[in-house]
Amino acid sequence: MSASGVLINRLCLIGVGLIGGSLALALKRAGACAHVAGVDTAGAALREALELGIIDSGHAGLAEAAAGSDVIVLATPLGRMPSLLQQLAPLLTPKMVLTDVGSAKRGIIEAARKALGANCAAYVPGHPIAGTEKSGPRHALPDLFAGHVVVLTPIRETSAAAIARVRAMWEAAGAIVHSLDAVHHDYLLAATSHLPHMLAYALVDCLARMDEHEEIFRYAAGGFADFTRIAASSPEMWRDVCAANRDNLLAAMDRFEQQLREIRAAVVAADGAALEEIFRRARDARDRFAARRQGAPE
Amino acid sequence: MSASGVLINRLCLIGVGLIGGSLALALKRAGACAHVAGVDTAGAALREALELGIIDSGHAGLAEAAAGSDVIVLATPLGRMPSLLQQLAPLLTPKMVLTDVGSAKRGIIEAARKALGANCAAYVPGHPIAGTEKSGPRHALPDLFAGHVVVLTPIRETSAAAIARVRAMWEAAGAIVHSLDAVHHDYLLAATSHLPHMLAYALVDCLARMDEHEEIFRYAAGGFADFTRIAASSPEMWRDVCAANRDNLLAAMDRFEQQLREIRAAVVAADGAALEEIFRRARDARDRFAARRQGAPE
Repeated sequence: MSASGVLINRLCLIGVGLIGGSLALALKRAGACAHVAGVDTAGAALREALELGIIDSGHAGLAEAAAGSDVIVLATPLGRMPSLLQQLAPLLTPKMVLTDVGSAKRGIIEAARKALGANCAAYVPGHPIAGTEKSGPRHALPDLFAGHVVVLTPIRETSAAAIARVRAMWEAAGAIVHSLDAVHHDYLLAATSHLPHMLAYALVDCLARMDEHEEIFRYAAGGFADFTRIAASSPEMWRDVCAANRDNLLAAMDRFEQQLREIRAAVVAADGAALEEIFRRARDARDRFAARRQGAPE
Repeated sequence: MSASGVLINRLCLIGVGLIGGSLALALKRAGACAHVAGVDTAGAALREALELGIIDSGHAGLAEAAAGSDVIVLATPLGRMPSLLQQLAPLLTPKMVLTDVGSAKRGIIEAARKALGANCAAYVPGHPIAGTEKSGPRHALPDLFAGHVVVLTPIRETSAAAIARVRAMWEAAGAIVHSLDAVHHDYLLAATSHLPHMLAYALVDCLARMDEHEEIFRYAAGGFADFTRIAASSPEMWRDVCAANRDNLLAAMDRFEQQLREIRAAVVAADGAALEEIFRRARDARDRFAARRQGAPE
């Protein structure tokens, strides 16, 4: 805590979209941040974030926004982060802490090591496991992280003080902070998040390409709406996740295809008992997952 | 309307689960049904439906339940319907109308023709496109069909009077009634409902089988919860749907696999532009679907 009682005097927010915007709103509501300096390549988003009170100052240049900040948050799609890290490297001062919100950690860590060198002590890789299918500052919500898990994947260079600072920031935003090894994080998230996004995109695109697509969507109900909600997510963000977690994603896709083939074979063989067993096992696993979620503090 | 002003004097409900129970509750609330006679092979469900006021009388035998009914609704999993149709055949009187709620229509129509012969005039195949992932009478909701589409797929034998009766029943339950050819219905629903259920079951089972399944589900968020909700659906019901709509389902699975392979190839080739294009096309289609749903009367 600084002398004034706030956790962060000046937050430099690079990318003022759904995730960055929601973090700023949460910190402000908690009285944990005195000033948010926003940077975004999209001028419209920057103006919108200012109007919505998400940021207190909007900047076209990184140097101007970073100057005097104690915490810098990279909240852009993953693909833009490496060059931003290179631009940030000469701007970092010993008092600054740097974190990011990328959905895959190995690639960005590699880029940070290359760009920051010894300054990696100040870098805390992070990933808030929360979001909606919406994008942009106008969908930012102060409650987006409340009760949700934020995973930090500190590297051996990261200082304990930097970790503590970033942890405190996310806790002030209402999140539950976990630590994971970056390699393990990427493996787990390929299964729970990256693969499902591919399936939802593939399904919607597959139906949209059918001649009868208008009619098909007319006879789709709530189950379909839930199933495909994540297909409304940011194409740019997911393009970058595919690149950043390629090997894990491919392995997860292969496991899934194998599983779908098993179901397909049972359908072909009219093996009702096998199908019922697969469906029952899946339902039981889904019920356990739902029960655990209900028991969560959220 | 009968002399007493109600649409249905006695409804015979075969299967008192989520769909049948919700229909009974909706009709009662609308004052459209004077008495619901329930039959279910599960004694516990029958007792529960009685206690919840879903049915007014519970019967172990079909003959007892059907006697004096003006509308009979088959609301069991599809696999049980053919033998129920055979048992119902000698019980039908000229004043009775028969409908069902099966998610695939071609197979049940064939079974009805075989079992009912000339009595097919009284049979109106139907499919309410609504539901939740829950099963059983205690999850029945009087609002389940409000604003949702119910598809009727009458056959050439079906009488206009029977269609009108069943249409009026669903409209009294708040539904919007459409008519479709049974073959076309099965083709459309394979894409929008049957395929997504296979994908959700396959994903959850695929993750549940991984060594790290406990940890994997711990790091799954809201998107995963939405995506996999339908994997909590009734295994018996979906086993039967697979059998009843086998060819359409297999064709839909093949189209999906083709689409997923296209994404996989782009991930392998690190073709970000191709991925972004697929994701953007899917997102746009999903956005149009969501906009249409919001505009719906629901």
